[in-house]
Amino acid sequence: MNFAVVGGDMRLSKLADMLRGDGHQVRCAGLERGRGDCLPLDKALADAGYVILPLPAGAGETLNAPLSESDISVKKLVELIAPGQTLLAGKPEGRLLELCRDRDVKCIDYFAREELTVRNAASTAEGAVEILMRELPVTLLGTRILVVGFGRIGKLLSLRLHLLGARVTVSARRPEDRVWIECLGLESADTGRLDGRLAGFTAVVNTVPARVLDERLLSQLDPDCLCLDLASKPGGIDFDAARKLGVRAIWALSLPGQVAPISSGAAIRDAIYNVINELECE
Amino acid sequence: MNFAVVGGDMRLSKLADMLRGDGHQVRCAGLERGRGDCLPLDKALADAGYVILPLPAGAGETLNAPLSESDISVKKLVELIAPGQTLLAGKPEGRLLELCRDRDVKCIDYFAREELTVRNAASTAEGAVEILMRELPVTLLGTRILVVGFGRIGKLLSLRLHLLGARVTVSARRPEDRVWIECLGLESADTGRLDGRLAGFTAVVNTVPARVLDERLLSQLDPDCLCLDLASKPGGIDFDAARKLGVRAIWALSLPGQVAPISSGAAIRDAIYNVINELECE
Amino acid sequence: MNFAVVGGDMRLSKLADMLRGDGHQVRCAGLERGRGDCLPLDKALADAGYVILPLPAGAGETLNAPLSESDISVKKLVELIAPGQTLLAGKPEGRLLELCRDRDVKCIDYFAREELTVRNAASTAEGAVEILMRELPVTLLGTRILVVGFGRIGKLLSLRLHLLGARVTVSARRPEDRVWIECLGLESADTGRLDGRLAGFTAVVNTVPARVLDERLLSQLDPDCLCLDLASKPGGIDFDAARKLGVRAIWALSLPGQVAPISSGAAIRDAIYNVINELECE
Amino acid sequence: MNFAVVGGDMRLSKLADMLRGDGHQVRCAGLERGRGDCLPLDKALADAGYVILPLPAGAGETLNAPLSESDISVKKLVELIAPGQTLLAGKPEGRLLELCRDRDVKCIDYFAREELTVRNAASTAEGAVEILMRELPVTLLGTRILVVGFGRIGKLLSLRLHLLGARVTVSARRPEDRVWIECLGLESADTGRLDGRLAGFTAVVNTVPARVLDERLLSQLDPDCLCLDLASKPGGIDFDAARKLGVRAIWALSLPGQVAPISSGAAIRDAIYNVINELECE
Repeated sequence: MNFAVVGGDMRLSKLADMLRGDGHQVRCAGLERGRGDCLPLDKALADAGYVILPLPAGAGETLNAPLSESDISVKKLVELIAPGQTLLAGKPEGRLLELCRDRDVKCIDYFAREELTVRNAASTAEGAVEILMRELPVTLLGTRILVVGFGRIGKLLSLRLHLLGARVTVSARRPEDRVWIECLGLESADTGRLDGRLAGFTAVVNTVPARVLDERLLSQLDPDCLCLDLASKPGGIDFDAARKLGVRAIWALSLPGQVAPISSGAAIRDAIYNVINELECE
Repeated sequence: MNFAVVGGDMRLSKLADMLRGDGHQVRCAGLERGRGDCLPLDKALADAGYVILPLPAGAGETLNAPLSESDISVKKLVELIAPGQTLLAGKPEGRLLELCRDRDVKCIDYFAREELTVRNAASTAEGAVEILMRELPVTLLGTRILVVGFGRIGKLLSLRLHLLGARVTVSARRPEDRVWIECLGLESADTGRLDGRLAGFTAVVNTVPARVLDERLLSQLDPDCLCLDLASKPGGIDFDAARKLGVRAIWALSLPGQVAPISSGAAIRDAIYNVINELECE
Repeated sequence: MNFAVVGGDMRLSKLADMLRGDGHQVRCAGLERGRGDCLPLDKALADAGYVILPLPAGAGETLNAPLSESDISVKKLVELIAPGQTLLAGKPEGRLLELCRDRDVKCIDYFAREELTVRNAASTAEGAVEILMRELPVTLLGTRILVVGFGRIGKLLSLRLHLLGARVTVSARRPEDRVWIECLGLESADTGRLDGRLAGFTAVVNTVPARVLDERLLSQLDPDCLCLDLASKPGGIDFDAARKLGVRAIWALSLPGQVAPISSGAAIRDAIYNVINELECE
Repeated sequence: MNFAVVGGDMRLSKLADMLRGDGHQVRCAGLERGRGDCLPLDKALADAGYVILPLPAGAGETLNAPLSESDISVKKLVELIAPGQTLLAGKPEGRLLELCRDRDVKCIDYFAREELTVRNAASTAEGAVEILMRELPVTLLGTRILVVGFGRIGKLLSLRLHLLGARVTVSARRPEDRVWIECLGLESADTGRLDGRLAGFTAVVNTVPARVLDERLLSQLDPDCLCLDLASKPGGIDFDAARKLGVRAIWALSLPGQVAPISSGAAIRDAIYNVINELECE
């Protein structure tokens, strides 16, 4: 197959290498600071059956391309797409989607693939363990940690912390999730009833994309408790209140690309192969 | 509150004790072989706000009541229910549901509570570990085991086997489940593509309620491989074929009540409290 | 190599099969109820370079041979050993050792091999998990269990119980062992100070070959607490006191051969190969 | 009790706080950059029953005191010790021991306490996990890692990596250690026979204080394999050869104080209490 890989971070650069390693033809653009074989955008796109855009692709006028030497206009990019070429983008939104709709360009969201979301969650969970180890002046062994939320990241993170010897409480809103938490051998709590139960934790990790930890709750934390927010915007911690209260709070976004670019690149590759496989079966 | 507990196995007897321990008035019927304080059915039901029937309640003319000294007619039972009394039954079906509909008796399925299903799955997973330990002439440590299916039981069982040192492969149909399996550190396989990949397992545990292990697949198992089926009827193993082929196959049904009646009774109690709680909030 | 396998339980029968499977010549005696290819003792011993006796070999006048159709005299056996033949026995003691000394027969204790002791401990730990699952009316998940002793079996058992979701306390006399226990994520206690701390456990498992659980301590257990003794004679539980107090107590001896004869046979085989290997390097 | 805490890193500063929190009188010296309440050496020592020196105390003429504003002469220090005062030092050696012998000053090595060594090993294991997560471009999940050595650190590290989903091989010289490794569910290898078996690992972690990974072995590693050495001097990796071969090698020393100063301070405190307890029982 013929691929163009345009923009993005080290994950997309690694992805380009892996696709080539699998025997495909790959041309890159907008990754100049990460690799030496980049072409002008039009050259990169010519002949490509599939054009791979970053995760996230970006919502505005320019593509998310931190390794590019110049801005990449989403408009120009979409205008270069010929009939028969397919865009594969991670969480495409805003201007990009609009332009694709207008010009009838097929744009598929590879991040919608559950298998990629799960692998991203596993990388995020590992990245969160690394941050806790780095930032806490104590070992995780024997330390009381609250994980807020029992979605993909909450599940994978709390199990890891538990197996490393931390004393983990996981909070969830749904009663059946709390039963799951207990069936995995962990303590459970009700996310809606954390008020009055926050003392004694050395760290609190939020995984819920909703404002859970407001000023009232933050004020109940132990003085040296670390708050780590893994939720995408708007995040689950009131960072202004945290600052005011002197609570140490860290917002860790986009961990997979930072902590494990090769694993993350491989996860994107597999999702893309699955997308293409299904397209070809249609 | 006033409860009547009618029929069922040791779980319902333990449940009666626990409800009483929580300060409720409890009258029992149809548990004569398990306890001494049983009353005639009409006496037991009088005054009861909630009438608790077994899990499963039974589909035919008589209630599922293995500890009763005589058959309990479902028809007679439903006719004794007065307005204002509520039936709480586990998986009610067939005749019982019909009669309730006809007589406008409220009958709530407590087994529909996800929290009970999950706790049952945890008991089933533990029971399956016990059976494998008892039936296999080798330790689980170091032994290759295939778990078919990654639903509740599949998840809880495969993690336990893995943590006990078995070398576990889990098969699932959905690609995202296979990614989950790998993110938990286990080997994954495609349930739809087991053909040709069944050699080398010391045990195969089915958790899928559909005929997965047919004659063709069973014939590919190693000579001493043990097959354990945890799925409710019709089960996932072709037992006739297994007999013909000389494959050792065990069908383990209703494990929670057998292996852990107290834990199972407690899980039913919690589910019933949750049901009542929601009824009273309505 | 030429082996004779004499006496013992299913482990030695499986061992004979495995040795033959590895290409050695193997003759059996005293296993008539377990297999059809047994020879008279003198025929079995003729030509054998190594004569394998059971684990344990037995301390008295007759060999430990539960599968034999007739008693095997230790005296007669040793008299049949020719110069150049080596006896390999598990825990040889008493009469057997005496006779070997008198007649200058080389008798090596294969159970003295640490690698066999550890594998036996792993089988014992698994067997103990199975017994707890079978005997307790609750799931291990969420259940409080005390393991007395942090030797090989204590280590392997407490880790398994912990990973299955039990809430495990391990007691040890040495402070450094208690630190190890905590570093594995478990609760620790001082074996010498259990007085007053025994309430709340659903099961107590002893692994220490010394009278730890005397009448005083047994009387402090919860009414339904199960006591499991894994220690060889004299055992660590005062069974008379347990009976008097109505404490349910189980003494489980020789678990490896019962719960996992094939794994145990393989462990003996490996130990024997290592013994022979070192003999030949001398 | 009256303590003087002299020199050392953040662990000793945290230790001083904890001792004070336990109600003891504590005076500090040589920790000026870490805290504001330091006194001149003679003032700090006056009245102290126990004088706590760092871990390691240092072998030369000056005390190991990275947070001190000026060098602390070991000679001057020992001369200030009055009869009845006891020195408690971590791994005291060389000049310090010599001076204590000459002046008949009691100097006890608190690092000789097994409980401290084990807790240090647990902190080191966690620190090693953190380094591997930080330095590897892949997740630990699914990654092949070789741990060389099965001492305290080897045990605690390999279990953690395994539970995080890495595919762990542990090498040991003693056959019984290799059996232990397998009984914990890990792959084993013979440290003396690594030649020819080093391909396919993403990371190799050495825990053995002897030159194991020489040029010959290093040259067999995969191109991007990371080498992490946790052994104290002289270390187990030939770093010159690694540089020559382009193998990425990291020597991580003194991890406990860096990654978990509070846990490490607490471990020192507990060891010191145990030392004092035994002194007073004498």
